[in-house]
Amino acid sequence: MSDPLHDPILPNDALVVFTPSGKRGRFALGTPILTAARQLGVDLDSVCGGRGICSKCQITPGQGEFPKHGVTVSPDALSPFNKVEERYDSIRGLKAGRRLGCQATVQGDVVVDVPPESQVHKQVVRKRAEARDIILAPSIKRVLVQVEQPDMHDPTGDFERLSAALATQWNIEGITAPLPVLARLQSVLRKGDWTVTCIIHDPATGSGPRLAEIYPAFDERPLYGLAIDLGSTTIAGHLCNLETGEVVASAGLMNPQIRFGEDLMSRVSYSMMNEGGAGEMTKAVREGMAQLCTDIAEETEVDLTQIMDAVVVCNPVMHHLFLGIDPYELGQAPFALTTSDALNLRATDLDLPLHPNAALYMLPCIAGHVGADAAAVALSEAPEKSEELVLVVDVGTNAEILLGNTQRVLACSSPTGPAFEGAQISAGQRAAPGAIERVEIDPTTKEPRFKIIGCDLWSTDDGFEEAALATGVTGICGSGIIEIVAEMRMAGIVDAPGLIGAPEQTGTERCFLDGRTYSYLLYDATPLGGQKITVTNRDIREIQMAKAALYSGARLLMDKFEVDSVDRIVLAGAFGAHISPKHAMVLGMIPDCPLDRVTSAGNAAGTGARIALLNTEARREIEATVKAIHKVETAIEPRFQEHFVNASNIPNAVEAFPHLNEVLTLPNVTFNTGGDDTRGGGRRRRRRG
Amino acid sequence: MSDPLHDPILPNDALVVFTPSGKRGRFALGTPILTAARQLGVDLDSVCGGRGICSKCQITPGQGEFPKHGVTVSPDALSPFNKVEERYDSIRGLKAGRRLGCQATVQGDVVVDVPPESQVHKQVVRKRAEARDIILAPSIKRVLVQVEQPDMHDPTGDFERLSAALATQWNIEGITAPLPVLARLQSVLRKGDWTVTCIIHDPATGSGPRLAEIYPAFDERPLYGLAIDLGSTTIAGHLCNLETGEVVASAGLMNPQIRFGEDLMSRVSYSMMNEGGAGEMTKAVREGMAQLCTDIAEETEVDLTQIMDAVVVCNPVMHHLFLGIDPYELGQAPFALTTSDALNLRATDLDLPLHPNAALYMLPCIAGHVGADAAAVALSEAPEKSEELVLVVDVGTNAEILLGNTQRVLACSSPTGPAFEGAQISAGQRAAPGAIERVEIDPTTKEPRFKIIGCDLWSTDDGFEEAALATGVTGICGSGIIEIVAEMRMAGIVDAPGLIGAPEQTGTERCFLDGRTYSYLLYDATPLGGQKITVTNRDIREIQMAKAALYSGARLLMDKFEVDSVDRIVLAGAFGAHISPKHAMVLGMIPDCPLDRVTSAGNAAGTGARIALLNTEARREIEATVKAIHKVETAIEPRFQEHFVNASNIPNAVEAFPHLNEVLTLPNVTFNTGGDDTRGGGRRRRRRG
Repeated sequence: MSDPLHDPILPNDALVVFTPSGKRGRFALGTPILTAARQLGVDLDSVCGGRGICSKCQITPGQGEFPKHGVTVSPDALSPFNKVEERYDSIRGLKAGRRLGCQATVQGDVVVDVPPESQVHKQVVRKRAEARDIILAPSIKRVLVQVEQPDMHDPTGDFERLSAALATQWNIEGITAPLPVLARLQSVLRKGDWTVTCIIHDPATGSGPRLAEIYPAFDERPLYGLAIDLGSTTIAGHLCNLETGEVVASAGLMNPQIRFGEDLMSRVSYSMMNEGGAGEMTKAVREGMAQLCTDIAEETEVDLTQIMDAVVVCNPVMHHLFLGIDPYELGQAPFALTTSDALNLRATDLDLPLHPNAALYMLPCIAGHVGADAAAVALSEAPEKSEELVLVVDVGTNAEILLGNTQRVLACSSPTGPAFEGAQISAGQRAAPGAIERVEIDPTTKEPRFKIIGCDLWSTDDGFEEAALATGVTGICGSGIIEIVAEMRMAGIVDAPGLIGAPEQTGTERCFLDGRTYSYLLYDATPLGGQKITVTNRDIREIQMAKAALYSGARLLMDKFEVDSVDRIVLAGAFGAHISPKHAMVLGMIPDCPLDRVTSAGNAAGTGARIALLNTEARREIEATVKAIHKVETAIEPRFQEHFVNASNIPNAVEAFPHLNEVLTLPNVTFNTGGDDTRGGGRRRRRRG
Repeated sequence: MSDPLHDPILPNDALVVFTPSGKRGRFALGTPILTAARQLGVDLDSVCGGRGICSKCQITPGQGEFPKHGVTVSPDALSPFNKVEERYDSIRGLKAGRRLGCQATVQGDVVVDVPPESQVHKQVVRKRAEARDIILAPSIKRVLVQVEQPDMHDPTGDFERLSAALATQWNIEGITAPLPVLARLQSVLRKGDWTVTCIIHDPATGSGPRLAEIYPAFDERPLYGLAIDLGSTTIAGHLCNLETGEVVASAGLMNPQIRFGEDLMSRVSYSMMNEGGAGEMTKAVREGMAQLCTDIAEETEVDLTQIMDAVVVCNPVMHHLFLGIDPYELGQAPFALTTSDALNLRATDLDLPLHPNAALYMLPCIAGHVGADAAAVALSEAPEKSEELVLVVDVGTNAEILLGNTQRVLACSSPTGPAFEGAQISAGQRAAPGAIERVEIDPTTKEPRFKIIGCDLWSTDDGFEEAALATGVTGICGSGIIEIVAEMRMAGIVDAPGLIGAPEQTGTERCFLDGRTYSYLLYDATPLGGQKITVTNRDIREIQMAKAALYSGARLLMDKFEVDSVDRIVLAGAFGAHISPKHAMVLGMIPDCPLDRVTSAGNAAGTGARIALLNTEARREIEATVKAIHKVETAIEPRFQEHFVNASNIPNAVEAFPHLNEVLTLPNVTFNTGGDDTRGGGRRRRRRG
């Protein structure tokens, strides 16, 4: 029994189990944890390649019993703290229980936890419950390499040896470098004593990896990227740390192109009517974009040269103007885009004052008026991954509509016009302090109450007038307009065809004859030095046309999908975030659906831009999705007109709204006394804007 | 016998034989000749893709018996002249017997000759017997495509449909386009009614094909490329038509960098001593290059925007300075290049005023002082394809030396200094009218006769003095210096160690005491108002050092190759073209070799640049060759010094010159009277310059 041949032999390897991945394997004693992680494909970060410099590979070894893994970890399962770790701990401090994965070696069976901050492909958590998390995998990457010194017997260039080092040490093959980086290369290599930090841009497409920057030794300055939603009215950007996924700052400004026209079609017209007009607008939008970059950098005290990547989403007209392409063809059928695919550009191509080698990615356009912004919404909301049939509506001057599920996705745009943004409404205004944003009308007394932006009180609450003095009651913003029109319909002040009733029909003196039709007095601000805020029948008409356009687009996609209802609705866009689902449904803006299945995605286009910025794979994904999306051109669909006329009624002349009817009953009033030519749908609006 | 089943059935296909390729195949009656050629892989040009527009596919059908091919061609073997051909013939004229290959269809067995001008991959004939012809296959290509019109039901961008058309019609996959081309795309497509001429740049490397220009309809304006030899002293360019291979014009100018130093090392020093000095020199050389482009375009009345490609060859210091890289590291061991590989750039990156999307290719460097110019020489002379062992010497301020055969190729550079260019020689001057370029000395009388540049008479011929009045006799150029030193050695005026004899030793009063040593009076130009032209012993020393450096480099490569002789020698460089092989061998500049195996390749670096310009495959070839070339660093080879000392003798202290001795016998004289410290090799020169 004491036969030495049968004595247990001390093993020369040990079991290493990584959590949370559960990946496991046996490794020779003395193997660094980082090496074990790499061999198993465990997502453990390292920028310095295991040289004990970057501290990215921190891990937490377990202690004691792990019955789930069948492992008992002894206190000496890892090698003791070595000098590199002691030095790091004394200078920067290592959290209790943490080790550097490149220094700690396997000495016995061990369970090793990789904390989230040590993962390369960290998850960036999105706040909404229904949103997917973003896996961090940006196109910009920092790596430390050690480069062979030159040798007269093998006279390759410094760059060729750097390239070989990147291939050997990081599997980065076929790097190229722009001339200015090449021009710095020799001094940086020597300053760093042949150890250099490379900032690699790898778009993961045909053009291959590029050396965007090089610093001597180990350089830790943060790497940033900008996700930009270039809208017709505003330009909004998020500055993100590319290695943590954190949004460091957000900023926005008005699109300086506004001076050439409020809506897109007037800008297209400007370019048609004015020689060089497109060039002026390109200059204006690029200046605006450059200003955004400068603003956000100043605000955060980030050097512009630390911004290495940018993703831009926008509608097709902005897309063309930003690229320096005359949008002429987008102004007329067949609305041909110059280019629809995603574009991998340089920030300098577009005069953006970022790092001189910063990349710029533009998402693909879906069609001539379903742009890269709609693609970004698709990336954010991923209808193609939804088992349920989801309708995604990006509400703006032009509404982009997606309908789909895992089987297929349809898209169209619909020319809602600017009414939803408060334009072309008599008391309309942009969402700003003092603007009425919420409204309720008592169905019995027909008396309204409302809230203004910048004040939490209802207008009927004590102290409202004092509180409102700061801003005044200045007008009605988009969401307020939707609410008041819906409330007027619910209170029997407006009938289904969209006529405001006379005082004798509605029983309220707030309705008053205003030319040939009636208006409704919402608030008399004259005692405060303001205006009377009324809703005219013409305002109702504008809202009817806008909502009819939106509904008709959605309904057309439902026709193509051969369905009469959808499982859920996502309202995207900054405006969509403020719309009350109930009021939108009373208006018949959106199809009938359980009210609790109507959610807001906020600025989904901006979120899509951020996803594409932080995850290169998401770019490939949306490029494929966009190719698969079936585009429906509302302008040439014969049923669009029919849907539009039906949808001009509030909520609709023919469609039942069963889920809405479960919640409320709309009064069956009618105010038409005959001979009136103001029925909804009588006027066609120009396309888009 | 008249059974219809056994009657010969008229075949529905016919045999088509193409000459000169001999390719043959059977094709259905009615097949266009162009289609048959494409299916067989016959090199028949077409830019319009068979639309009868470009007339590039002209062929000549045979008539009658072709016993070699076993074919009898009937007069109606091809379809008759059709309207397209008649129209073309009436407008432009079709040579007798010619047909358009895309219009003429097969109607019976036929032999079709493809004339050279109808071949895409035409051979560009080089004049030298030993030179390979260049196969025309440039990186710039013209193709006509027909693009699908936009369709609202399938809303892809115009560029994506153009890209699809290029793939379908020309197998050009994955085209990309710069923004300015995209900006023009829509108007060009519509102006050309969806037929456009694309100028494609395909470097045939990682980055893929690029749409460099687009013109409406069929556009015939010629496409040009520039092959530039960027030397330390002069910049020389050849403007080539990229579709015919023809050199349209050649031009040259002084490198404006000369103001920073005559030789390369003084320019490297200038950058070391002056903050911003490298930048100044970059600016100067780019200005010079831009000037060359402008000059050559003006001279030929070619629009600069028609120049779509450029190839640049130069030594490593010029390479770095042109690219905007400080050449500091090239000034000191280990002579590390920033980058050694070939570079695919844009002409605009280097401020060249060509087409805004013109490409620029720089050949790879072989080592820290064996540059892209040496690589170009290797491309032109192809030592790696030679069965014989060939020594290629590019004679200049710095000599680049290649030795090799199909087994392997070695390379080195050797610091010859500027003596071979007439510098540092008392009566030396650049090759210009009035400079002595050829010399003979009568071995008996020791009397010289010579020729000057710009005059065909020998100096002893009647009328020479009158003829020489036009220019004067102004000095001795490089080839003249080599001849006179060799002739002085052959006539017994100079001994093997390089001492000029006294009058009493040489028997001529032309030798005279000139300080501590003797000089030889070649010509007294004072009666003509000129100077006395003499050769001093110091001149001999300069030539000894220059030729010893050259020889030692060659000899070192022979050591590495383990040979004592070479099969043939090629003298490259403009200067090499004027050297007399016999005199060079008497001097011991080059190793012993049969005299008729010493040839001149002219400006082989410029030729190499032209080959790379006209044939993309040649770029891949030289990139591979350069990687395979074994570089020898003379500075660290212990035997270099020994070879140098031996080679300081004329021709050599230790080497036999058996082939030279078959032709002549050198007098065995010695003039050393002891105590003289002017022996050759006593002074080391600085490296390179």
